Amino acid sequence: MSVTAAIAANEEAIGGDAGKARVVFRTAGSLVGPTHVRLVSRDHTIEVDEPDVLAGGNRFANPVEYALASLASCQAITYRFWAAKLGIELDGVEVAVEGDLDLHGFFGLESGVRPGFTGIRLDVTPLGPESAERYEALAAAVDEHCPVLDLFRNATPVERQLV
Amino acid sequence: MSVTAAIAANEEAIGGDAGKARVVFRTAGSLVGPTHVRLVSRDHTIEVDEPDVLAGGNRFANPVEYALASLASCQAITYRFWAAKLGIELDGVEVAVEGDLDLHGFFGLESGVRPGFTGIRLDVTPLGPESAERYEALAAAVDEHCPVLDLFRNATPVERQLV
Repeated sequence: MSVTAAIAANEEAIGGDAGKARVVFRTAGSLVGPTHVRLVSRDHTIEVDEPDVLAGGNRFANPVEYALASLASCQAITYRFWAAKLGIELDGVEVAVEGDLDLHGFFGLESGVRPGFTGIRLDVTPLGPESAERYEALAAAVDEHCPVLDLFRNATPVERQLV
Repeated sequence: MSVTAAIAANEEAIGGDAGKARVVFRTAGSLVGPTHVRLVSRDHTIEVDEPDVLAGGNRFANPVEYALASLASCQAITYRFWAAKLGIELDGVEVAVEGDLDLHGFFGLESGVRPGFTGIRLDVTPLGPESAERYEALAAAVDEHCPVLDLFRNATPVERQLV
């Protein structure tokens, strides 16, 4: 299905039944090595590991790199969708993300240092024939509607339970 | 390097030079298909796609599934590290995460609906011989020090620029 067709089909489905817009995404799995984690989402396996300095085998990217990849890919895909919605020509998107992290937080060595990222730099390069102003307008629409940028920028309630 | 050795090595390095705790993680890449994104973090490639209903080829998990996988794997690995730090025996960890998302936000069909997850359920099963109380104490320590749980639960500043 093309991006334009997917937008039309989703908007029609949601317009006819608002409940169809409420979706649940899932992943589940376990530790399969010292720091090697294997997870499944639908028909996809996702594997995670740590580098040697964090006791891993460095076979895969680590959790915080997957968090950055989630943001980078969500941005790129949201550019594709919102370019189609707004009629802005877009040949491609390049994206680079950096996140600052202070390991005092993870290792519990200094109270008041958060364990997660303290700041993120997100550089996006939209490729195509449109003016800089048009791509700025696209970027503004994307930033308002990108699910993972929202996750980063705002607090999300998490209910954690031990099973 | 074992988990215990990695903890000792990191704590010694950070203790000797607090600047060594400040690390930067990165990912960068581009759209290589309608919704297929290929990214690189260090020596690891991460590939992302959408299902057919979102104009993709469904070759890989999608951005929000990677966000959930980032949380699930970070939890599992933080259980491993903090069990070693606290001297709690831990044979394994199973983890399952669900996230609720309302597509009105992504498609811009209703103002006031956030595009990201509105709620997350995180179920963790620590496996091993210790008492339920000991695993509850471990879970409390993990939740205070898990980088990706912090990312989900709290706002993180993101500087976005067009290149």
